[in-house]
Amino acid sequence: MSQSVAFIGLGNMGGGMAANLVNAGFNVHAFDLSAAALENAKKAGCEIYNDPCEAAKNVDFVVTMLPNGNIVEAVYIHDQKLLDVVHKNTLLIDCSTVAPENSRRVAVEAEKRGLRFIDAPVSGGTAAAAAGTLAFMCGGAVDACEDAKAVLNVMGANIFRAGDHGAGSVAKLCNNMLLAVHMIGTSEALQLGVSNGLDPKALSEIMLKSSGCNWSLEKYNPYPGVMENVPASRDYEGGFMINLMLKDLGLALESARESGQSVPMGSLAQSLYTLAKTRDKRNGLSDFSSIIDMFEK
Amino acid sequence: MSQSVAFIGLGNMGGGMAANLVNAGFNVHAFDLSAAALENAKKAGCEIYNDPCEAAKNVDFVVTMLPNGNIVEAVYIHDQKLLDVVHKNTLLIDCSTVAPENSRRVAVEAEKRGLRFIDAPVSGGTAAAAAGTLAFMCGGAVDACEDAKAVLNVMGANIFRAGDHGAGSVAKLCNNMLLAVHMIGTSEALQLGVSNGLDPKALSEIMLKSSGCNWSLEKYNPYPGVMENVPASRDYEGGFMINLMLKDLGLALESARESGQSVPMGSLAQSLYTLAKTRDKRNGLSDFSSIIDMFEK
Amino acid sequence: MSQSVAFIGLGNMGGGMAANLVNAGFNVHAFDLSAAALENAKKAGCEIYNDPCEAAKNVDFVVTMLPNGNIVEAVYIHDQKLLDVVHKNTLLIDCSTVAPENSRRVAVEAEKRGLRFIDAPVSGGTAAAAAGTLAFMCGGAVDACEDAKAVLNVMGANIFRAGDHGAGSVAKLCNNMLLAVHMIGTSEALQLGVSNGLDPKALSEIMLKSSGCNWSLEKYNPYPGVMENVPASRDYEGGFMINLMLKDLGLALESARESGQSVPMGSLAQSLYTLAKTRDKRNGLSDFSSIIDMFEK
Amino acid sequence: MSQSVAFIGLGNMGGGMAANLVNAGFNVHAFDLSAAALENAKKAGCEIYNDPCEAAKNVDFVVTMLPNGNIVEAVYIHDQKLLDVVHKNTLLIDCSTVAPENSRRVAVEAEKRGLRFIDAPVSGGTAAAAAGTLAFMCGGAVDACEDAKAVLNVMGANIFRAGDHGAGSVAKLCNNMLLAVHMIGTSEALQLGVSNGLDPKALSEIMLKSSGCNWSLEKYNPYPGVMENVPASRDYEGGFMINLMLKDLGLALESARESGQSVPMGSLAQSLYTLAKTRDKRNGLSDFSSIIDMFEK
Repeated sequence: MSQSVAFIGLGNMGGGMAANLVNAGFNVHAFDLSAAALENAKKAGCEIYNDPCEAAKNVDFVVTMLPNGNIVEAVYIHDQKLLDVVHKNTLLIDCSTVAPENSRRVAVEAEKRGLRFIDAPVSGGTAAAAAGTLAFMCGGAVDACEDAKAVLNVMGANIFRAGDHGAGSVAKLCNNMLLAVHMIGTSEALQLGVSNGLDPKALSEIMLKSSGCNWSLEKYNPYPGVMENVPASRDYEGGFMINLMLKDLGLALESARESGQSVPMGSLAQSLYTLAKTRDKRNGLSDFSSIIDMFEK
Repeated sequence: MSQSVAFIGLGNMGGGMAANLVNAGFNVHAFDLSAAALENAKKAGCEIYNDPCEAAKNVDFVVTMLPNGNIVEAVYIHDQKLLDVVHKNTLLIDCSTVAPENSRRVAVEAEKRGLRFIDAPVSGGTAAAAAGTLAFMCGGAVDACEDAKAVLNVMGANIFRAGDHGAGSVAKLCNNMLLAVHMIGTSEALQLGVSNGLDPKALSEIMLKSSGCNWSLEKYNPYPGVMENVPASRDYEGGFMINLMLKDLGLALESARESGQSVPMGSLAQSLYTLAKTRDKRNGLSDFSSIIDMFEK
Repeated sequence: MSQSVAFIGLGNMGGGMAANLVNAGFNVHAFDLSAAALENAKKAGCEIYNDPCEAAKNVDFVVTMLPNGNIVEAVYIHDQKLLDVVHKNTLLIDCSTVAPENSRRVAVEAEKRGLRFIDAPVSGGTAAAAAGTLAFMCGGAVDACEDAKAVLNVMGANIFRAGDHGAGSVAKLCNNMLLAVHMIGTSEALQLGVSNGLDPKALSEIMLKSSGCNWSLEKYNPYPGVMENVPASRDYEGGFMINLMLKDLGLALESARESGQSVPMGSLAQSLYTLAKTRDKRNGLSDFSSIIDMFEK
Repeated sequence: MSQSVAFIGLGNMGGGMAANLVNAGFNVHAFDLSAAALENAKKAGCEIYNDPCEAAKNVDFVVTMLPNGNIVEAVYIHDQKLLDVVHKNTLLIDCSTVAPENSRRVAVEAEKRGLRFIDAPVSGGTAAAAAGTLAFMCGGAVDACEDAKAVLNVMGANIFRAGDHGAGSVAKLCNNMLLAVHMIGTSEALQLGVSNGLDPKALSEIMLKSSGCNWSLEKYNPYPGVMENVPASRDYEGGFMINLMLKDLGLALESARESGQSVPMGSLAQSLYTLAKTRDKRNGLSDFSSIIDMFEK
């Protein structure tokens, strides 16, 4: 008999993830505040619900994909109180990008009720969500992270256990802070080359084979025309928005502040992305690789 | 009949490069100011000279590997005046890391005398020099860069033409500035993870498969114990010294200043490496990945 | 007949402030969790209380001087619920350094109960608190700020109204962020001069009369031996601790993030002070002008 | 009998300075490459020359006010060779803003010929040059700096001796780097206040009386409308150009690099001013306080 998943939060990411679960044979109970999102979920084969608690009542897994940590805490603890309605065998998986503290608070409350919860934020954008090739960074007990693979493997290509509760969120924030840093560093290097007469494509090829190599150069070149099928080649429309990078940098720097960790490059990245947003013609909705425009002369 | 190369500058890098030329059957005329370096070159099979002009007089190629641009200009133009003694068919190849302006000035003087010159700085350290797996970033005429491959292919694994005179030097500086940025970004991310309870090895593995991936993580992990056979696992001895990174950052930022290019991440990297040097127990002779110590709590 | 003030929070700052109120003829009801602090307040002439609500019940003014915004909200709203026990004619004055949001939340709750509340954080350290020469930056209604002068003038030399509720806190954070920036800038400039052979005293005198002039140079020179009676001349003991500067920078940057404001210099100051703390022999208890040590060679 | 001064370099600064010397009774021999500048000097009462050597041959003082250090070295040593034509009692005073190395090289050459030379760069802009209220920062022998006051007192209000040869240039660069830092810090603080609802004038007044106080706030408020008769109140026209600040920051950072001094705030200031120039509608000719525009939302 097929297993059931309650999927709460059917946005650009969650919609694709839920569809992959349906395609893999899961019985998916879908909830979202948006009627349009619910409609899409229905078309994708989900059973739709108007109340998250109803959706989550008797399922094998709950997957939440929500905009921020306050909403995650509200859904699990304070408002919808999912923790008080789910069956005690249900495995709870939060895929939202939140502060480690949010993950830990939900985990503590879940534990009090004898429930298993993990944080499992994702890396990879909407394309990876649709293709089922996301990376999941899990935080929680070893057995819970292992059991979660039944659903995570359907939605992703790489499933990592980063450590205990909150560790998945920490790993996500560290990774995205580093991404911001090397995207800006790559942008500076390419523009410095261009300002000194180099062809951005030739320089990109050289650095790809040298010690400057990084994901921004390899998968997501920010210079227009160097690489096909990246945001830089469609005027930075779509992709991973400046606003979302700012959200993640804010969370990373908050963790840094709380743990007394100095992250000067990460802090400068936040300052520069904040400047970029005020200049962005789409007010922060452009892809984050558009930061290269700031260094254009 | 075997071709001849005058090799000027037999330091840690040049010594290994010259030996590879000997092994490939070149007749190598070696010069260095250091008697010890000359002695080593002799053992490696070079013919040694006490005067760079004598070494360079009738050869197919001149390769220079010198500490800085002033010395390069002195050797070619002002003091030893190599440009005035070499045969007009000799192809001149400078592998030193210098300012693009140095490369361009030598090129102009070479052209006046009907000589062919290229800048061809390298990426990869002393191990790659010994193994013959360096990357060369060439600047100069297409045919000269092509003809230089006769010797460059013996010393390196990747030969790139970056553009016209000076472009090799520009590419080298862009690459190394980006390297400095992602090495520091990687260090911050790893320490932020550790400060929040993560295992540096687990976090490294996650970021390697995610969008944070970069050369520092992949080949040169700065956190002690995560990777074998890197400077971090031998207390940062050997490798690419802080002092050399500061030299390259100084040249990159000078190019940025002259071309009116803002490189905030590159500038911050210089500030942080300068701080690191004042705290380094080897006064700048430690490997550049030791920057991670700065962020340890 | 003399007016009465309930003074909640009798630390290094609050103790001196309460004593000045006593000396000016106010009837001061003092409360603090620390028995030692209460004992000192008693010696200074305060009437001491074991319960803040008892202290605040029938007074003309309440002054709070507490460690952070969570405690301020707890005292006024959630735990001690001062707002529910004070007389409706009592004027409530919070002198703690808190986030503008804390000030605004208390103000909203006060207003619901028909009470007048202002935020009035201070500038100037423990010496100014003892001497009654603090600066107060007030946020709230014009009449409330005006009426508060009856007590503020006793404790301070400059009373400003920055604007509506929370504006006092905003002004404090802007000021202290700027202070951090020019203290570090001054430290860099002095060390750059010294590294190039200048006498720090001569250079300080020149910059004091030139466009580099700022409060750090004028009142608080960070270079040891240049100025008497500043922390730099007593090995940075006492004064305004690195930890407190980090608290204020954290609040300022949080306000910046929430309002989408880029503050690159302020962010770099936070990164550098966080580094300084990890190297401080007193673990953040040294005066903030000790940041100059970071730039010593 | 009146003393004579050869004045070389009659730009916006030099023109006003020379006029003040005439008004004080000096016999001024003026030289500039620009015919228009010479014409103005003639109107101001100078005796004009078409050759700097002729102008400098038999005078009591030579004052040079030139665009950069290469030109200063060219005029004194390499091209016009002033050092070879002046009388040995002539006191040579260079008021240009140059690298300390330039000052030291001219001093060494002067000494070889038994001549007295000092570096004496100025602080204060064209208005101060016209009004005779400049500050001079002198480097050189005590007696030479003392004797130079005969002319410097006529052109300036504050004459400082910073130390030996080059020390005047060092002091100038330290001061202007600090100026850049607090101007940007002031801009960030004002915009952070405005973004959080404060009136920039009220906030300026508060910070002026608090620990954030600095020259930018006191004499040169960057926020439009807060202060009269500053560049911010005339759309940043005139004043001290971004280009000139970039020149000074470039020299300061070069000195920092050569002396192994980390100046992270100064470096960030250079990055931000370089960004500001690329966005400036006058391409770097706007006043440097226009940096505040970068932080406007």
